[in-house]
Order: sequence, then C-alpha cells, then structure tokens
Amino acid sequence: MDAALPSNAYERVAAQARASSLGMQAIPHSLRSRSLEAMAAALRAHQDRILAENARDLAEAEAALPPSLVKRLRLDAAKIEQMAAGLESVQSLPDPVGCIQEKLELAPGLILTRVSCPLGVIAIIFESRPDVVPQIMGLCVQSCNSVIFKGGTEAKHSNRVLYDILYQAGVESGLPENFAQLADSREAVAALLQYDQYIDLVIPRGGNALVRSIMDISRIPVLGHADGICSMYIHAEADPRLALALVHDAKVQYPAVCNAIENLLIDRSAVKDMLPPIIADLANSGVRLLGDSELVALFPGLEPASEEDWECEYNDLILSIAVVGGIDEAIRFINAHGSGHTDAIVTANEETAGEFALRVDSSSVMINASTRFSDGFRYGKGAEIGISTNKIHARGPVGMEGLIIYKYIVQGAGHCVADFTDAKAFTHRRLI
Amino acid sequence: MDAALPSNAYERVAAQARASSLGMQAIPHSLRSRSLEAMAAALRAHQDRILAENARDLAEAEAALPPSLVKRLRLDAAKIEQMAAGLESVQSLPDPVGCIQEKLELAPGLILTRVSCPLGVIAIIFESRPDVVPQIMGLCVQSCNSVIFKGGTEAKHSNRVLYDILYQAGVESGLPENFAQLADSREAVAALLQYDQYIDLVIPRGGNALVRSIMDISRIPVLGHADGICSMYIHAEADPRLALALVHDAKVQYPAVCNAIENLLIDRSAVKDMLPPIIADLANSGVRLLGDSELVALFPGLEPASEEDWECEYNDLILSIAVVGGIDEAIRFINAHGSGHTDAIVTANEETAGEFALRVDSSSVMINASTRFSDGFRYGKGAEIGISTNKIHARGPVGMEGLIIYKYIVQGAGHCVADFTDAKAFTHRRLI
Repeated sequence: MDAALPSNAYERVAAQARASSLGMQAIPHSLRSRSLEAMAAALRAHQDRILAENARDLAEAEAALPPSLVKRLRLDAAKIEQMAAGLESVQSLPDPVGCIQEKLELAPGLILTRVSCPLGVIAIIFESRPDVVPQIMGLCVQSCNSVIFKGGTEAKHSNRVLYDILYQAGVESGLPENFAQLADSREAVAALLQYDQYIDLVIPRGGNALVRSIMDISRIPVLGHADGICSMYIHAEADPRLALALVHDAKVQYPAVCNAIENLLIDRSAVKDMLPPIIADLANSGVRLLGDSELVALFPGLEPASEEDWECEYNDLILSIAVVGGIDEAIRFINAHGSGHTDAIVTANEETAGEFALRVDSSSVMINASTRFSDGFRYGKGAEIGISTNKIHARGPVGMEGLIIYKYIVQGAGHCVADFTDAKAFTHRRLI
Repeated sequence: MDAALPSNAYERVAAQARASSLGMQAIPHSLRSRSLEAMAAALRAHQDRILAENARDLAEAEAALPPSLVKRLRLDAAKIEQMAAGLESVQSLPDPVGCIQEKLELAPGLILTRVSCPLGVIAIIFESRPDVVPQIMGLCVQSCNSVIFKGGTEAKHSNRVLYDILYQAGVESGLPENFAQLADSREAVAALLQYDQYIDLVIPRGGNALVRSIMDISRIPVLGHADGICSMYIHAEADPRLALALVHDAKVQYPAVCNAIENLLIDRSAVKDMLPPIIADLANSGVRLLGDSELVALFPGLEPASEEDWECEYNDLILSIAVVGGIDEAIRFINAHGSGHTDAIVTANEETAGEFALRVDSSSVMINASTRFSDGFRYGKGAEIGISTNKIHARGPVGMEGLIIYKYIVQGAGHCVADFTDAKAFTHRRLI
C-alpha cells in the first residue's frame, strides 16, 4: 500500500528522502553517535582523496572566480581536521530527540506528553564552502532528519567526494539508505522547492540573491533571512567611550556580514559631544559616511543619504547616520526601516534599555554590546544552521533546535471522549 | 521617517494592524486584563443589541442555509454569557509575554536572554460562528498581538456588532487604535493574504475548502490543517473490549469533525476474534463500512474500498477497514495515507505502543485512547486557536502559545566582537 516512487528524478530524490526520514526517526542515539564517529574517521582516512578532488575545483575556479571566492573553496589538512572535529563535537551534544517538553494528566489514567521529534526532510542549498557538507550532515544525523544537499557548481568535485565518503561511512554504520542525498545540477533547486509534500524545511546558505530567489519560489518554509539591515542607536545617556568602541566594532570589524550595522541613530542632544570622535574614527578606518540633512549641514565630510540608503544592506565600509529626537523616534525608525535581524542601543539608562528591548521587533536586541555577537556559535549553540528573521518557529541564530519539532502522545486505558462531555471530568494536572 | 499609509484599502488595513501591533507589544499585563474585563462587561450590557443584529442574520439565513448552519449562527443569552465568561477566563491566564525561556552568560558581563514576545499581526478568516470574534480577540489582546477579522457574510451583522462593542471597550480601556479590525467584503481574503510584510500568521477557521484555498494562495504562514485523515490500528495484543469502545467513540461519537477516524487497521491475526463485534456495533450505529479485498471476502456486509478511500476524509458515518501484517505495515500505511493529524494504536504491549508513537509522523498519537481527545480544550490549553499539521513552530492543538514567539536580548557593558576572536573567551554558562 506504499506509494510507488515517482518517475521524475527530483521528485524521486524528495520522495526517497521522505521515506528515509521515517526510518531515521527510530535510529537510537548510540547508532547516530557511532556513525558520526565513523564519518570523522573516514574524513581523516581519505584526506588525500579529498584534497585531490578539491584541487580540480580550484583549478577551474582560479581561472573564473575572484581570489576571495577561491579562498572559500580551498581545503587543506587543517580544514579537514576541523571538519572531523566538528562531527565529533556534534556527536557529544545531548540527544535533541525524544525530550519530554510537557507532561500533563488530562484525567486519571490519561496522560498527555509533548515530545521533541525530528522535522523530517531538510533541503540545504549552499554556495562555495564545501565544509557545509559535513557540518549539516552531522546536525541532521544527530537530529534524526534526512537531508538533501544542493551545492554550487564551483565546488562540485569537493562536495561530491565529501558526500561520498560521509554517506558511505553512515550507511556502513547502519543509517538508512538515502539518509543524505546530493543533487548536483542547476535545475535541482527550482524542482526541489515544489515538493512541499516531501520536504519540511529549506535552508539557504549563501548571498542575498540566492536567499531571496529561494524565498520567492519556495512552497516549503525557508529558514533564513534575506536582509541584515541592522542599526545602532546612541541614546543621550550613552557612555561616549562605549559608543565609540561599539560603533567601530559593529561597522568595521567585519563589514561584509549580515550582523554588521548599516545605520547609526543618535539622539539630537548627543550629536555635538559624541558624534565628532565617532565620525573621525570611522573616516580613519576608511568608512564612507552618509547623513541626513541635519548632519550633512553640521559635518562637511558626510554625503547626503537618500531614502533608499536607510534600507540598504551595504555589506561594505559604508554607514548612514540619522539624528533622532529620542527613543520613540529611534524605535519607529528601526521598526520601519530595519529587517528585524539585530539592533542595538547604547545607554547607561536601564529603563530606556528595557523599553528598547521590548519595543524593537527584531530577533536580537543588543544592549551596550556589538550587533556582531548575533551568531549561533557566540550564542553558545555549537554549529549554526542559520540566522532566521522568520517569526514562525525559529528566530534569530538557530542551532540544532531549528531541526526539531514536537509531537503529542496521549496514553490512556481505553479512554473515550463520550465519557468526557462534562468539562469537569478533566483534571489538567501538570506533571512536569 | 515612518512609511506613509498605503492608498489601497486592504493594504491600509494590514499596515494599520502592523503599526498597532508595535504599540501592543508594550501594553502591560494589567491594562490587558482591565480591557478584557471591560469587554466582558460590554457584552453583557449590550445583550439586546447583539440579539437584534443576530436576528437580522438569522432572518436572511433561514431562507438560504441548511438548519445545521443556521444553528451555528444563532446567539442567545446563554451564549453571550459564555462569550463574556470566556474573555474573563483568558484574562486569568498567566501572562504569555516576557517569559524568560533561556538565560546564558556568554562571557563575564555579557548575558543572553531569550524572552517570549508576540508574533505581531494575526489575520483570522472564519465562517458562521460569531463567537470566534470574542474568543480570538481575547487571545490576541492577552498575547499583545493585533488582529484582523474576516468573517463570513452569513454572520455579517452579528460579527459587526460584536466587533464594535468589543473594540470600543478595548480602546476606551487604553488599547491602541486598530488593535483589532474587521474586514467585511469577499475580496478581502485574497487581498490580505498578499501582505506578508505586515501580517505574521493567518488562521483559517472553517471547512476544508476554505482552509485549502487559503493555503494555496497565501504568502503568509498558515496555522491549520486541510485534512483530518485519522486512523486507528488494532494490534494483535489489543484488549478486545477497549478496541470496540475506542473504535465506536472515534467514529460514531461525532463523525463530522477532523479528529474522528476515517480508517481502521487491524492485525491479520486479530481479525477473526476482534472484528466481528466491531463490525456489528458500527453497522448498528448506521456506519457504512468499506473494506479491502481480504475483508470483503470474509464479511459480506462490507463494500470494497477503492485506493481513494484510504485518503478520504468522509466527515460522516463511513469507515474504511484494512488488514495489516503487523506494526510495520500499519505505520507505513498511516505515514503514506494519513494527514499527520492524529492516529491511534490499541495494544496491551507497551513496547509496541512506544514504537508506534516514535515512528508515526503525526502531530498527535493516541495509545489506548480515542483520537477525539485531540483538541485544545481537552489538552488543557483553555481556548483553542486551531489544530496544526505544520511542523514549523506550532503542531497539534494550539493554544495561546501559537501566538507567541521569542526574541533574544544580549546585555553587555561595551562588549565588542573584536575581543572575542579566540573562542575560549566565551564562557557559555547556563544561568536558567
């Protein structure tokens, strides 16, 4: 009575993943741990084979791609050791599956339990970095999900050899067939995103253009964020030294990432004292500075910002600065122009900080700390799956918990609803 | 610097809801409680006005609609008192907003807190029952969400008067303008479902056709389920008396609902002893019985089931019965043909029950209990928002927690990422 496998190649991949995920649900923690250890050992044992395949990608890439992208592609002995150690660290995490989140006596002998369980099938679409393959495979195995990889063509030989080695080690350890699959071709993405009956979650890992195109066409929920338009607000009661250091860190330390700031807001009463040293420091660091009309009149070094600038993710050494009349205007600005990713306040006033945290509708709010801390590793999640601006389920930096959902289990002894038409028959006594 | 309100009428409704939701986030629990009390009092005070408007809907409906639908429309003094009492019971629930779910020291002086917060804007699209208005308004106010109602035209006068009374009581108590809005017209649904930049979640409450049409066109996440194809599996080691009582309850007690069973599976070795009394009982209760070829040959009263029957939600006194070779086949059947809603096993074998609960990929699994218990009130959630077969975020019967998500707050004292390039600088010490 099982459905036959579909004839379309990508639908078959998706249907196989679904079938495999139903087997993965029952794999005990001990077997998952053994297979992750076997995968780590296999990576170390096949180092030469991995480097040889990686060299093929590099040879093609060196002619076609800018040096920064070639650098992301390149593997070496140290990176392979890192991948193996990463698999071992996932293996040592507590079992995320089967955790009792809630236990409630509904009536004598009738017990409701909410238990964590895998999502099912995860599709990951990524660019460049082949180290995504062991990292995500480790998280998916540990969380009993089956996974479909679609990597970039620039890394196709590296992805393939890593996948082959890890998959073989997994199946030999007892994981079910197709627990992980690799789709190579370009048309795979659009095809896979249609199969919401088989795939539970799509995770894009790459530039804005990739993420946005996936969000636009996917019928499947997407975990991610298209934009990282982050702001820092300097309140009138900020410590000027903190403000200077935090703006510098949030803009200059690594401007190409989503949690760097694009907008700086400052209270009108703080402009004269606090802004000149900040502007001098940023200009010194090569930051191009834009400002609203009020600031452009005060600081000749600032270029005028257009309306579009307040909603632009520069990913570069560029910063737009606006004056605000106080916390209300700052919050309104952020909720109107930001992307709900990460926003910061610098203030010595605890009450103001609390109000900012309450009313800014973003997945992370920083109080006297750099927006750059918004990151799965820094939040103590071990490996990061992504940073989500979705509000449904996962939000902010997401670790393995983003691959886990729950089911309810009701244990009775022949309990029938017909005996519970009187609401008083329920006890609803919390057990855990 | 705020965006101006859009000129399109429905986009304006959605944008107003978003603006209002940002105000709702900061409404303290005491004000929310007061406004729910004021709403309850207003319903009691305006009973005659409500009944008069309801009579207008009834007069139109009695000519046009079947008696069962007219019954759902009808309000009386007792139902109005129930609505008021419902608002008071929501008011007494613990505050779902601002709960600390996690607290972690990232490094000395750098504290990460995960705090529950509202989703933002909820759109609810419902048919008939005007009591949805006070119920959902209560849950949304208590969870600091703003809400857009779109009711059926058959209840338009009742919905309007309830909305007007409740909205006025809310605003007079201090809730922000547009904390709840009512859209009347038919074209509102398709229009609203496009505004994913303003609306965070859509909740359809109505028949399958309504839910499915919304799921097909919405760009916004939908909390709900299109199908309720539930199965009960009688294992060889079932107690025959339990099996008989549970099948009866799950099929006959209220067949028109999503958590009634459509399929019955039975182990081959149990057919001879356990099935005849079950078939007799169901036939006695007027249930039309379909079976697979094996059963049709054994029981002349059974009609042959087609392939479509195994995936059909009858919502009626009809049941399809299939023989299985054991638990593996039963689980495969349910995962292939079911809708991931609620499935049950009847067995005295605890190990088998555990395996069934682990491997059936449904939001609720029943062990020796009726599928009909799958319900928000019965699960102790107070008011039910819906039953979700989504795996992202909310699953199964969903109460107010389905309207809540979390944000991260990081409190530092000028902490910069530049000082944390060595991973060892993090302590990641769990505080709660």
